[in-house]
Amino acid sequence: MPQTSDAPIINPRDLEFQLFEVLDVESLTQRERHAEHTRETFMAALDTAHAVATEKFAPHNRLSDEHEPQFDGRRVTIIPEVKHALDAYSGTGLLAASKDFERGGMQLPSVVANACLSLFKSANIATSSYVMLTMANANVIERFGTESQKRKYLQPLLDGRFFGTMALTEPQAGSSLSDITTTATPNADGTYALRGNKIFISGGDHELSDNIVHLVLAKIPGGPAGVKGISLFTVPKHHVNDDGSLGARNDVALAGLIHKMGWRGTTSTMLSFGENDACIGELVGEPHHGLAYMFHMMNEARIGVGLGAVMLGYRGYLASLDYARERPQGRHPTDKNPSTPQLRLIEHADVRRMLLAQKAYVEGGYALCLYAARLVDEQNTGDSAEARADAALLLDLLTPIVKSWPSQWCLEANSLAIQIHGGYGYTREYPVEQFYRDNRLNLIHEGTHGIQALDLLGRKVMMKDGAALARFAKEMESAIREAREIEGLSACADALERASSETIDTVAHLRPVLARDTDLALANANAFLEAFGHTVVAWIWLRQAIVAARALQNAAHAISEADRDFYRGKIQACQWFFRWELPRIHLQHARLRGLDDTTLAMEAAWF
Amino acid sequence: MPQTSDAPIINPRDLEFQLFEVLDVESLTQRERHAEHTRETFMAALDTAHAVATEKFAPHNRLSDEHEPQFDGRRVTIIPEVKHALDAYSGTGLLAASKDFERGGMQLPSVVANACLSLFKSANIATSSYVMLTMANANVIERFGTESQKRKYLQPLLDGRFFGTMALTEPQAGSSLSDITTTATPNADGTYALRGNKIFISGGDHELSDNIVHLVLAKIPGGPAGVKGISLFTVPKHHVNDDGSLGARNDVALAGLIHKMGWRGTTSTMLSFGENDACIGELVGEPHHGLAYMFHMMNEARIGVGLGAVMLGYRGYLASLDYARERPQGRHPTDKNPSTPQLRLIEHADVRRMLLAQKAYVEGGYALCLYAARLVDEQNTGDSAEARADAALLLDLLTPIVKSWPSQWCLEANSLAIQIHGGYGYTREYPVEQFYRDNRLNLIHEGTHGIQALDLLGRKVMMKDGAALARFAKEMESAIREAREIEGLSACADALERASSETIDTVAHLRPVLARDTDLALANANAFLEAFGHTVVAWIWLRQAIVAARALQNAAHAISEADRDFYRGKIQACQWFFRWELPRIHLQHARLRGLDDTTLAMEAAWF
Repeated sequence: MPQTSDAPIINPRDLEFQLFEVLDVESLTQRERHAEHTRETFMAALDTAHAVATEKFAPHNRLSDEHEPQFDGRRVTIIPEVKHALDAYSGTGLLAASKDFERGGMQLPSVVANACLSLFKSANIATSSYVMLTMANANVIERFGTESQKRKYLQPLLDGRFFGTMALTEPQAGSSLSDITTTATPNADGTYALRGNKIFISGGDHELSDNIVHLVLAKIPGGPAGVKGISLFTVPKHHVNDDGSLGARNDVALAGLIHKMGWRGTTSTMLSFGENDACIGELVGEPHHGLAYMFHMMNEARIGVGLGAVMLGYRGYLASLDYARERPQGRHPTDKNPSTPQLRLIEHADVRRMLLAQKAYVEGGYALCLYAARLVDEQNTGDSAEARADAALLLDLLTPIVKSWPSQWCLEANSLAIQIHGGYGYTREYPVEQFYRDNRLNLIHEGTHGIQALDLLGRKVMMKDGAALARFAKEMESAIREAREIEGLSACADALERASSETIDTVAHLRPVLARDTDLALANANAFLEAFGHTVVAWIWLRQAIVAARALQNAAHAISEADRDFYRGKIQACQWFFRWELPRIHLQHARLRGLDDTTLAMEAAWF
Repeated sequence: MPQTSDAPIINPRDLEFQLFEVLDVESLTQRERHAEHTRETFMAALDTAHAVATEKFAPHNRLSDEHEPQFDGRRVTIIPEVKHALDAYSGTGLLAASKDFERGGMQLPSVVANACLSLFKSANIATSSYVMLTMANANVIERFGTESQKRKYLQPLLDGRFFGTMALTEPQAGSSLSDITTTATPNADGTYALRGNKIFISGGDHELSDNIVHLVLAKIPGGPAGVKGISLFTVPKHHVNDDGSLGARNDVALAGLIHKMGWRGTTSTMLSFGENDACIGELVGEPHHGLAYMFHMMNEARIGVGLGAVMLGYRGYLASLDYARERPQGRHPTDKNPSTPQLRLIEHADVRRMLLAQKAYVEGGYALCLYAARLVDEQNTGDSAEARADAALLLDLLTPIVKSWPSQWCLEANSLAIQIHGGYGYTREYPVEQFYRDNRLNLIHEGTHGIQALDLLGRKVMMKDGAALARFAKEMESAIREAREIEGLSACADALERASSETIDTVAHLRPVLARDTDLALANANAFLEAFGHTVVAWIWLRQAIVAARALQNAAHAISEADRDFYRGKIQACQWFFRWELPRIHLQHARLRGLDDTTLAMEAAWF
């Protein structure tokens, strides 16, 4: 059986297009923080990432799916390829990609750092998870940790000697962090004694690094009830001595591994803290502010989930594209002559539809996630306070979309990649079924689809009297104005204008209802999330089409045939999205404005 | 961790509703073929099926997923629970459920036989596959086989001593049967020497039965090219002597097992026929008519796939419903008091949406598949030649929908079942992730979605000058008329009327194009398949709502509270489908009528 496990991890032309043609990342080198960078240094980082991802991460993607981490009651064993890959990653210095030079970092912009990460996610989402978790953990400690915590944990995390986790979820509480019951009782020496159980802790145990630093949410007895009583603690697997050497084991026990449908290479653990009353943690920041610290990192964590969903979709798209170009299969409906040679799959209209849909989903999602990362840069290093505030506003608004849209539609892309492979796609001899299994998690972790929907409609579009949405509408207007000037894009401009005004209308309709009947106003929050998601992605596609159309116009005689094909493909994918996808939103807006109560009125006993 | 592996396999109240209230299956006892049956004998068969499915099939559903069949190069080993279950199944006599009494059959109507089968599919799709394949095989031999073939194979197949396969697909040809290359060369004694390779042959090797009877498509050298040169052969694993005893092994070799994402309990095989030039087969029927014989069974095989997809969705729905009723999680958006007890999941609007969507998909799909099986009865035993011809026409038209719609939407139901479980749903500790993996195959086998779409738009709605669609429109009109008389259903009646006339308009638009530019007319066949599928299911939901509304009206004081809840749930699910799902079709019809060429115009080089 032929295989396509060597499916490319990215279309480099698209990566270049996104970074340098759409997002003008080169302009960031004008900023003080990135002044030592050039387009070439950005490309060098990307090339390094591409090489390590291809050579060290991709080859064991299937292997670590087939050979999950094993726990014998004492130790977790993981296939050695995972550690080799992570050591290679640490060797690149990319763990500190966006950190200060003085910490050994590269001071790369977030958008370039995320583009580097995207290659690892594409190559091997499970192995790259250890990296993501460690970076997120280091970010929290860097920002909110004490000097002592930074000294003990931060540099080893950035060097890849220690790995990190985020230990939030508990079995009885799930998404409802308000209901966690892990306690942290003050000890006489200023430390805390932790006790409780956590579940779904990715990377919660392994021997890939010298130590594991858990960031644990827990409640200090006597504090406020609910989320206002949650504090954050560092809880190392091994204590760290003042000289940086490792001390004794802390009282953190692996209660068991969780076996998932996909993402199997990452240990997913149940952890017991303080079974022997000897689990020692240190408070991060102030008591009872733990959730705020954690949520400070949430925008970036959610971009990470969205980007992961995109890359799984992207790789499946590339695999199915290769397959469709190579596999002979069938003839056109009009060709009844069995002696003509079979066509390549890509010649069939329905296969082309499935490729075009995938392209629209994954390249749209990729553009969205990189745009969000670019907003992080704008928020951090924007030229004016206003620019930085604007970026923060947009980022807040778009985060639920960045997290949820790719997890829904790039999963659909994975399904289409299977479909193009036919029966082969469903077998474990081909890579696409794994991408589909891996990607299904993204609709759940870091906040389910339902939670993103409530966040978007209940908070983000309403906050500051709708300021974020108004700001985003300005971005859409600008794209609409530009598209109107370009031949072939005016229908898209009209459609986006209608989508934008429908969004604003719907929010205006729901705003007063939210105050008087919250449950009714939020009953169809999911429809709003989906409609707004499609609107945002239509906008991001129009931005790409504008750039592509201009490139074709401005350089009609100077560009290569390959570039011309590339730009035409961008415009066609944009058209497809506007013709076949965006119009779905009108039904959703109509039901939202009509305050449809079909689900609310469905009584539990009627099921 | 709590588990729900004991999820019920059916809602018995729904089964009763479908059979006796919607489809009036009891009236079939008026027909000569079923005259010895009563509602009670139907229920007895269903009760037997329910008991065996629950006790013998369901318990090893996860186990056989985790312990796939193994091939050591010589023998295939399968966990013993599979054989125990299949022996129990054979013991029920249900293999011959719809066969003549004189063959030891039960002469059950197809709709009741399919309802029985549905319970096994729900309990364990993989183990039940051996049964489905054997029944399909026996049907072909019964109808087209020689007396000698019937003597040697048919009774052992109906008794469960032999199992059967359908060996169509080849590695280089896939769905394009025109391109198969397996040959069957006549021997002097009237038998044929087969040579070639088949792939994706489910149940192609095992030791679950004394023998395996392969039905193999092959070409007799010198025959016509393409599908017109395909003949059908019986090729047993072990030859059968005239006295019924087993003879020597035939030259059929297992070249390897295929490892799938789901459906793991069924051996999926690559078979080599005639590696040692000693593979002997017998022709079924006339030379070169093989495909017609196979396709004669295709309607029923495709109902089987649709029903399997439904039942995987149905079981996931019931599992997530149980979970949502039991699991405490979170509070209403307006409740900011963390000391109030957590709500059950089912109290959240978005969870209720996900349950209602699942209900609409799976109960709609169930109603559709049982309706199709009822058409098989009408086709076989209808009161007049006209009734039988009408049923055949409707069945031909609806088969692509029966096969494709559940495979798309009941898979979506499985995804929603995972979502309701949150992170747990994604783990192998809960049953729903397996249903999702199992169900993904249904979009591919027995004709992919794309093939169903071409069959529907290119042939079924066009054939006989649109007679089938016109006949179906009459069915819709009758439901529309009835619904208009019922309070609360008139909006649904209007919506279905619009859907019906849009369908007819679209077909009228495309008919002339099909003749002059087939590729353009069929370019969006997938959209037609989806739009027509939603129209058909809207109709089937309206039928259910009409029955439910009448039951509520007629017996307002006599029915139990449980029945009242049940009927209200049916009406609400119908409303949900009409409000949130059916309106999707307008976009699809608009694009179809506009002859949208976005995918056709996308050149291969642009990807």
